[in-house]
Amino acid sequence: MNKDLKIFENSESEVRSYVRSFPTVFTKTKGYKMWNKEGKEYIDFFSGAGALNYGHNDDHMKEKLIEYITNDGITHSLDMASVAKATFLEKFQDVILKPRDLDYKMMFPGPTGTNTVESALKLARKVTGRTDIISFTNGFHGMTIGSLSVTGNSMKRKGAGIPLQNVVTMPYDNYVNDQDSLDYLERFLEDSGSGVAIPAAMILETVQGEGGINAASFEWLKKIEAVCKRWGILLIVDDVQAGIGRTGTFFSFEPAGIKPDIICLSKSLSGYGTPFAMTLVRPDIDKFAPGEHNGTFRGNNHAFVTAAAALDYWKDDTLENNIKIKSQKIIDFLEKMVEKYPEIKGEVRGRGFMVGVASEVDGLSNKIAAKAFELGLIMETSGPNDEVFKLFPALNIDDEGLNKGLDILEESIKSVVKKPVTN
Amino acid sequence: MNKDLKIFENSESEVRSYVRSFPTVFTKTKGYKMWNKEGKEYIDFFSGAGALNYGHNDDHMKEKLIEYITNDGITHSLDMASVAKATFLEKFQDVILKPRDLDYKMMFPGPTGTNTVESALKLARKVTGRTDIISFTNGFHGMTIGSLSVTGNSMKRKGAGIPLQNVVTMPYDNYVNDQDSLDYLERFLEDSGSGVAIPAAMILETVQGEGGINAASFEWLKKIEAVCKRWGILLIVDDVQAGIGRTGTFFSFEPAGIKPDIICLSKSLSGYGTPFAMTLVRPDIDKFAPGEHNGTFRGNNHAFVTAAAALDYWKDDTLENNIKIKSQKIIDFLEKMVEKYPEIKGEVRGRGFMVGVASEVDGLSNKIAAKAFELGLIMETSGPNDEVFKLFPALNIDDEGLNKGLDILEESIKSVVKKPVTN
Amino acid sequence: MNKDLKIFENSESEVRSYVRSFPTVFTKTKGYKMWNKEGKEYIDFFSGAGALNYGHNDDHMKEKLIEYITNDGITHSLDMASVAKATFLEKFQDVILKPRDLDYKMMFPGPTGTNTVESALKLARKVTGRTDIISFTNGFHGMTIGSLSVTGNSMKRKGAGIPLQNVVTMPYDNYVNDQDSLDYLERFLEDSGSGVAIPAAMILETVQGEGGINAASFEWLKKIEAVCKRWGILLIVDDVQAGIGRTGTFFSFEPAGIKPDIICLSKSLSGYGTPFAMTLVRPDIDKFAPGEHNGTFRGNNHAFVTAAAALDYWKDDTLENNIKIKSQKIIDFLEKMVEKYPEIKGEVRGRGFMVGVASEVDGLSNKIAAKAFELGLIMETSGPNDEVFKLFPALNIDDEGLNKGLDILEESIKSVVKKPVTN
Amino acid sequence: MNKDLKIFENSESEVRSYVRSFPTVFTKTKGYKMWNKEGKEYIDFFSGAGALNYGHNDDHMKEKLIEYITNDGITHSLDMASVAKATFLEKFQDVILKPRDLDYKMMFPGPTGTNTVESALKLARKVTGRTDIISFTNGFHGMTIGSLSVTGNSMKRKGAGIPLQNVVTMPYDNYVNDQDSLDYLERFLEDSGSGVAIPAAMILETVQGEGGINAASFEWLKKIEAVCKRWGILLIVDDVQAGIGRTGTFFSFEPAGIKPDIICLSKSLSGYGTPFAMTLVRPDIDKFAPGEHNGTFRGNNHAFVTAAAALDYWKDDTLENNIKIKSQKIIDFLEKMVEKYPEIKGEVRGRGFMVGVASEVDGLSNKIAAKAFELGLIMETSGPNDEVFKLFPALNIDDEGLNKGLDILEESIKSVVKKPVTN
Repeated sequence: MNKDLKIFENSESEVRSYVRSFPTVFTKTKGYKMWNKEGKEYIDFFSGAGALNYGHNDDHMKEKLIEYITNDGITHSLDMASVAKATFLEKFQDVILKPRDLDYKMMFPGPTGTNTVESALKLARKVTGRTDIISFTNGFHGMTIGSLSVTGNSMKRKGAGIPLQNVVTMPYDNYVNDQDSLDYLERFLEDSGSGVAIPAAMILETVQGEGGINAASFEWLKKIEAVCKRWGILLIVDDVQAGIGRTGTFFSFEPAGIKPDIICLSKSLSGYGTPFAMTLVRPDIDKFAPGEHNGTFRGNNHAFVTAAAALDYWKDDTLENNIKIKSQKIIDFLEKMVEKYPEIKGEVRGRGFMVGVASEVDGLSNKIAAKAFELGLIMETSGPNDEVFKLFPALNIDDEGLNKGLDILEESIKSVVKKPVTN
Repeated sequence: MNKDLKIFENSESEVRSYVRSFPTVFTKTKGYKMWNKEGKEYIDFFSGAGALNYGHNDDHMKEKLIEYITNDGITHSLDMASVAKATFLEKFQDVILKPRDLDYKMMFPGPTGTNTVESALKLARKVTGRTDIISFTNGFHGMTIGSLSVTGNSMKRKGAGIPLQNVVTMPYDNYVNDQDSLDYLERFLEDSGSGVAIPAAMILETVQGEGGINAASFEWLKKIEAVCKRWGILLIVDDVQAGIGRTGTFFSFEPAGIKPDIICLSKSLSGYGTPFAMTLVRPDIDKFAPGEHNGTFRGNNHAFVTAAAALDYWKDDTLENNIKIKSQKIIDFLEKMVEKYPEIKGEVRGRGFMVGVASEVDGLSNKIAAKAFELGLIMETSGPNDEVFKLFPALNIDDEGLNKGLDILEESIKSVVKKPVTN
Repeated sequence: MNKDLKIFENSESEVRSYVRSFPTVFTKTKGYKMWNKEGKEYIDFFSGAGALNYGHNDDHMKEKLIEYITNDGITHSLDMASVAKATFLEKFQDVILKPRDLDYKMMFPGPTGTNTVESALKLARKVTGRTDIISFTNGFHGMTIGSLSVTGNSMKRKGAGIPLQNVVTMPYDNYVNDQDSLDYLERFLEDSGSGVAIPAAMILETVQGEGGINAASFEWLKKIEAVCKRWGILLIVDDVQAGIGRTGTFFSFEPAGIKPDIICLSKSLSGYGTPFAMTLVRPDIDKFAPGEHNGTFRGNNHAFVTAAAALDYWKDDTLENNIKIKSQKIIDFLEKMVEKYPEIKGEVRGRGFMVGVASEVDGLSNKIAAKAFELGLIMETSGPNDEVFKLFPALNIDDEGLNKGLDILEESIKSVVKKPVTN
Repeated sequence: MNKDLKIFENSESEVRSYVRSFPTVFTKTKGYKMWNKEGKEYIDFFSGAGALNYGHNDDHMKEKLIEYITNDGITHSLDMASVAKATFLEKFQDVILKPRDLDYKMMFPGPTGTNTVESALKLARKVTGRTDIISFTNGFHGMTIGSLSVTGNSMKRKGAGIPLQNVVTMPYDNYVNDQDSLDYLERFLEDSGSGVAIPAAMILETVQGEGGINAASFEWLKKIEAVCKRWGILLIVDDVQAGIGRTGTFFSFEPAGIKPDIICLSKSLSGYGTPFAMTLVRPDIDKFAPGEHNGTFRGNNHAFVTAAAALDYWKDDTLENNIKIKSQKIIDFLEKMVEKYPEIKGEVRGRGFMVGVASEVDGLSNKIAAKAFELGLIMETSGPNDEVFKLFPALNIDDEGLNKGLDILEESIKSVVKKPVTN
C-alpha cells in the first residue's frame, strides 16, 4: 500500500470510489493540469465529473475569491441578502437569462446537484397536486431518496434500502431499436386504462452523463416538450452535468429550442469547484411558501463570488466557439480510434465536450481508463456497465492540452487492445 | 421597497425566508459582528443557524484558506485523495476521535446536513435489511425526501407532495406530561402485535434545534441507547446543529456517555461557513460498496482546510470552558427575564449555547426577534409555532459581545411586552 | 396420518391452519354441535371465529334458504336489484337502523371482512383527501394489502412482502399501564411538529378479537369519538367480529353511545355462515362514484335471504337477554377458574360472548385448547402470542350446551395445569 | 322513479352501478334466462360478469346443494377439514389437474377474485424477496389495495385515495401498433440502468375482460413465459374471468401451452354463483406459513358442493365442443354486424365466449347495450372508455337462446346506428 494513501484506507469509509481508480494524492492544480504529491503531472479529461468546466483554479475567479475573503466579505448567509448574492443575481439575469429571452425565478437549495433535483420534484408535485414523476431509462439525478427514485441505475437504487416510489420510468430516446420511444410514452398517457397516471413532471437530461453519454436528438426533446404541454405536465431539465457549456451552450437544451418549466443547475455553476446549486423556476409556478424548502448552505457567498466571475466567460462567444471547434476535433479523433482499432467494437456518443466511446467488449473501457491514468491522463467511464470511456476536458482547454490528452488516450487504447482482454 | 432588496424580490424565488426576517443587505462580517451595506453593525446571536459556531471569518482559518487558494491547492477532488483531505482525516483522528476513545470510519456525502442524514438512513437500512426508521416528535433532519420523512414539522412534510413513508414517529423526551415516553416506545417494540416493526435505526438530536430547543435528559439518551442495543437497532445521532461544541462539547452526546452507531455532522464542521458534511460510521457497519452513495461536492478542499484549522480549537479545553461559563450566564439571564417579565409566560430551554425561551403567548417570540433586529441583534425563533426565541451566539464570543447582545434582548422584550399583543 | 386428512395434506396449500388445530373431518352441524365423519360430537365454542353467532344451520334460516333455492330465486346478481336484496334492505332499515335512530347508506363490497374494511379505508381517503389512517395496537382488520396495513400483528404484516404504508399505529385503551393512551394520541394530533398528520380516519374494534380479547372502555370510545369530531377525522368501527350481537348488542358500540361515520360488518351478518359483508356509511359521506368500488360477489342472494331471516332474532330482546345472562355466567366461571387454578396466571377479558382468559404462562392457552378439542370442545386462542384462550359460543346456546362446554373446559384446564408445562 | 327501485335509491350507497344499467328488480332465473318481478323475461348475455358460466341455477348443482343443506352439512368451516371440501379437492385433482398433467397446491383465500389476487401477490413477494410486480396495460385484478395497484383503470386507481406502489405497468400484447411490446419489456429487464428492477412476478389475464376484451396471442404468452423463466420471475395468470371455460378451455392458457407458477380462480369456479376463490400454487413455492394468509369465508361449503358438481361438465368434451362451435357462430355474427353497420366503426375482439366489438364512436356501445336491455337482452360494455359491447353468454347456451340474443343485439344495433349519435 502507498503510504500516502494509508490514511484514506484506514480512516475513510469503504464507500470512497475515485481514489480507487486514481490512487495517488493530489496537491496542486491549474487549468487542465493536476499534480500529485511527487510532482507528477496529469492531464485532466475528467473535470470533476463536470464540476470544473473552466478548468482548475481559474485565475480570474481566484483573484475575486481571494479579494472577497481578504476583505471579510460575509461567507455564510443562508438566504439573507448579501452584496455578493445581489451581484450574482443581477449578472445571471443580464448575461444569461435576458439574452436568451428566458424568465425564471432563481431558487437556491442546498449546494449540490441532488438538492436542486429534490427541490424541483417537490415543487412540481406541490404545484400540480399530482404524485408521480416520469423519469427516463439510464437517467441519473442524485443519491438522496427523492432524486434516487428518478435515477435508473439498479445498484444505486438498491442502496436506498427501501422501495423507491411515485415514479414511472419511460424509455429515453433510441432506447429500443427501430421503435419510437415516444409512441409508448404517448400511448401510456392517452390510455386511461394504462396504469400510468398523468404525472406532475417529467425529468430528463438532454445528454445522459452517468447513463452512458446518451444524447437525445433535438427532435425528441421538442416532442417531449409538446407532450408535456399537451398534458399539463411540467418539464424539468436536469442540467447539472450537461449544462454550463458542457454540450456547447450555457444551457444544454438551447439548440433544441425548448423552454423547460424548471431547470436544475449545479456542478460548474460556481465555476471554481465550490459547492453551489440553483433551481430555475417559471415565475407562475414559483409557489413554495417561504422556507418550505431550505438548506443551511444555500447562501455560500464564496460560490456567489466565483459564479459571478465565471459568467464573464459568457459575455461573448469565445468560449462557445472554442467548444464547437474542439468538440469536432475530439469527435473526429474518436471516430478515427473506433475505425483504427476495431477491437474496441466502439460507438462514438455525445455532444460538445460531453463525448465518449461505448465499447461492446466487457471491461475494455475500464482498462483503457486505467491505462490512461498510468500514462498521466485522468478520465472515467460511465454507463450501466461502465461500458463507455468518456472525455470531459475543460471547456477552455488549449490545443496543446487537448492534443497531449488525445495522444495519451490513443496510446492507452493501443496498449489495451493489443493485450488479450481478460476479466 | 428598499432598493437594495429589489433584486432579491424580483429575481429570487418566493421560497426565500431569512431575508424577510432580516431585510437588509449584508457585506462584511467578523467574529460575532455583521455589517450591512450602510455600515450598520449587528450582534449575531444566530450564527448561521449553527453553521458559524466559531463566529464569522475566523482569522486563523482565513489565513489557512487564503494560503491554500493562493498556492493553487486542489479545490474540487470528489473522493480522490488530496493532501488537504489527508490532513483533515489525520487531525480529526488525533484531536477528536482518539482522545474520546471513539473509533469511526469517516464518510463524506454531499456537503449539507440533509445529505449526511440521507447517507445514514440508507446505510442503516442496507446494513440491517429493515425498512423502517424511528424518528422523534419535533425532530428536524433536512428537506430532501429521505430526511424529510424523519422530520416532524407538518408544513415542511406537506412540501414533499407525496406521502412520506417507512418511518414511525415516537415521542421525544418529556413529550407528554407525566408520562415516560420510553414506556410507549418499549411497549411498541416488545409487542409483536403493535403494528410497529423493529426498525433499522432510530435517529435523534440530543437537543432539538428547529423543533423548539428541546433538550433530552442524559438519562433518556442512555435508555434510548440501551433500547437500541437490546433490539439490534442502530442509533443515529444527528449532530448537525447540536454538535461541534454548540451544547458544550464537541459531540453533543458526550456528557450522556453514549456511543451512537452513526453520527451526522455538518454546519460548523468546516468552521468557516463553507459547505461540508461528514457521516461517522462504526467500522463494522461500514458496508456501502464503493460509490453506492456519492455526491459531486463531497471533496470540497476549502472545507477540508478550514475544518482542519478549526480543530485547533479542540486541542485544549479553553473553548469548552468558555462555553460552560458563558452558557450559565445566558441561562441565568433568561431565567431572570422570564421572572421579570411574566407577560412572556416563558420557559427557559436548552443546553450550552443552544438555549432559548418558549413563550406561551402566540406570536410574542417573533415580535421580540423582530424588535431585536431593529435594535441591532440577529436572532431567530424556532418550534412548531415559532414559539421559542433562541440564542445561538458564537462559542468564542467575548464578554463585551455577549453583554451587548443580552442588553439588546432585554430592551426588545421590554418593548414588546409593554405593548398590547395582537396578532 | 389420518387417512381422511390425507387429501388435505397432499392437495391443500401449507397455509391451511385450523385443520392443524382440529385434525378431523367434519360432516354435519346443528346449533352449537358439530359431528365428524366418525360421528363424534363436539361442542362448538368457536362459532366460525364469530361467523356463526346464531349457531350452525339455524332452522328458520335454513327453511328460507331452501325455499329460495328451490324456487330458482336469482342467486348471483352483482348490484342489480333483486327481490331478496330489497327484502334485506327494508328489513335492515326497519329492524336495526330505525329503532336505533341510525341513518346509514348500505354499501355491499365483496363478501368478506377484509373487503368491507378496504371499502371503508378507500372511502375515508377519498372523502377527506387525506392519505393516513390511524389504527390501533393489536387491531386486526384483514389480510389484503389495505386492511393488512392497519393490522398490528407482525407475522401477518411481514406476509405482505412490501412495507405497509399510509398508516400510523396508536396505543389502544390500556396499552401502557397507568398511562392514558389518549393523552398520547391527542398530543400527536395537536402538535404540528409531531410528524403525525391529521388522518383521513381512525379504525378500531371495540373489542379486539384476534388481538387478544381486549375490550375498550366505553369512556375511551367516547373520547375517541370526540377527538375524531374535533379534528374532522372519520371514525370507522370494524364490527366484523364484535358486531351482530357478539358483545351483547347488535352493534358492539351501542352501549358506548357513539355513532361511527363508517361501520364494517361481515362474519355473522348473513347468519348462516354464507359469505356476506356490508359497509354502512353516513349519508353525507356516501361519495363513491358508481362502480368506483365493486366486487363480483357483492350480490350474494343466498346471503340476503338468510341475513334477512336472521334479523328476526332482533325483533325483540330475547336474544340480548340470553347473551346478558349467560355472559355473566361465563365470566363468573372464568373468574372462578383463574382463582382455582393459579397456575394459569390468568386474567379474564372481554365483554358479552366475546371473552377469554389471558395466561402469562407461555404456551398454556394452546395446551388447554388442544386438550379441549381432545375432549370434544372446539375453541381457539388469540393474542399476539396466542396467550388468550377464548370462548365464542353461539349467542343462542342453551344452558345444557353451555354447561357441557364449560365442564370440558375445566377438565382441560385441570389436566393441563397438573402436568409440568414444557414447550 | 320505479317504486320497486325506491328502496335501492333510498337505502343503498351511491356506489351501486349495474342497477343503473339494468333498472328492474329480478326475481327468478334459469339457465340463460332471467325474469323480473313483473314476469318479463330477459336473455342473459352477461352471466354475472363471468360468474355464471354454466347459466343460472343449474339443476344438477341445485340438487346437490339442496341435498347438502337439507342434511345439515357443515356450512362454514374456515380451513377445517370437511367432507364437502375433501370431495372438491379430490375431484379437482382428478378431473382438472391430472388430465392436464398439472401439479398445483390449492389455496383458499377469501371467496372473491380480489382475494385470490392478493394472496398471489403476497406469496410471490414472499417467495422471491422482491417487492415489485409487473402488470400490464388495461389489466383488471380487483379493488382492494394490492389488486388495485396492478389494475390499470385510472378511475378505479384514483378511488384508492393513496398512491399505488410497488408496481410497474408494461404494454400488453399489441399495445402500440407495429411495435413488439416484448422488445420493450425485455430491454427494461436486461438493462441494469433502466430503473425497472427484476420483479417478484408478472400478473396478466390471457384475455382482458374489463380492459376491453383484448386477447393476447399464444405466441406472446409463450414469450412472456420464457422471459419469466429467464429472469426467475413468477408468472401469475389471473384466470378469474377468462378461466373456467370462458375462452374455450378450463384454464384460459391451455391452448398457449404455458404453465403459470400461480393461477387465480374465482367467479365461475363455484358454478352456481356462490362466492368462491382458489389460488393454485406450484408446490415448490407453496411457502406461506400456516395462517399467514387467511379469511373467514375461505371454507364456504356450499361452494365446495356446487363447485364439485360443476366439475362434471369437464369429465368429457361436450362443453368444450359446444363453446367451440357457438363461439365461431358468435364471431361470425359480430363480423357481419361490423360489416353491415359501418357506422359502428367496429372491431371484433376476443376468444371463445369472451368476445365483443370495440366501437370507435364515443358512447355508441353503451347505447347499444341500453337498447338491448330495453328489448330484453342483458349485456354490458367494457374497456377504458366503455367502448366495447361484450357478449358473455352461458357456455351451455342452446341454439335457441343464442339466436334469440343475437337477434335482439342486431335489432339494438340497427336502432342505435340509425339515430344521430349525441352525447
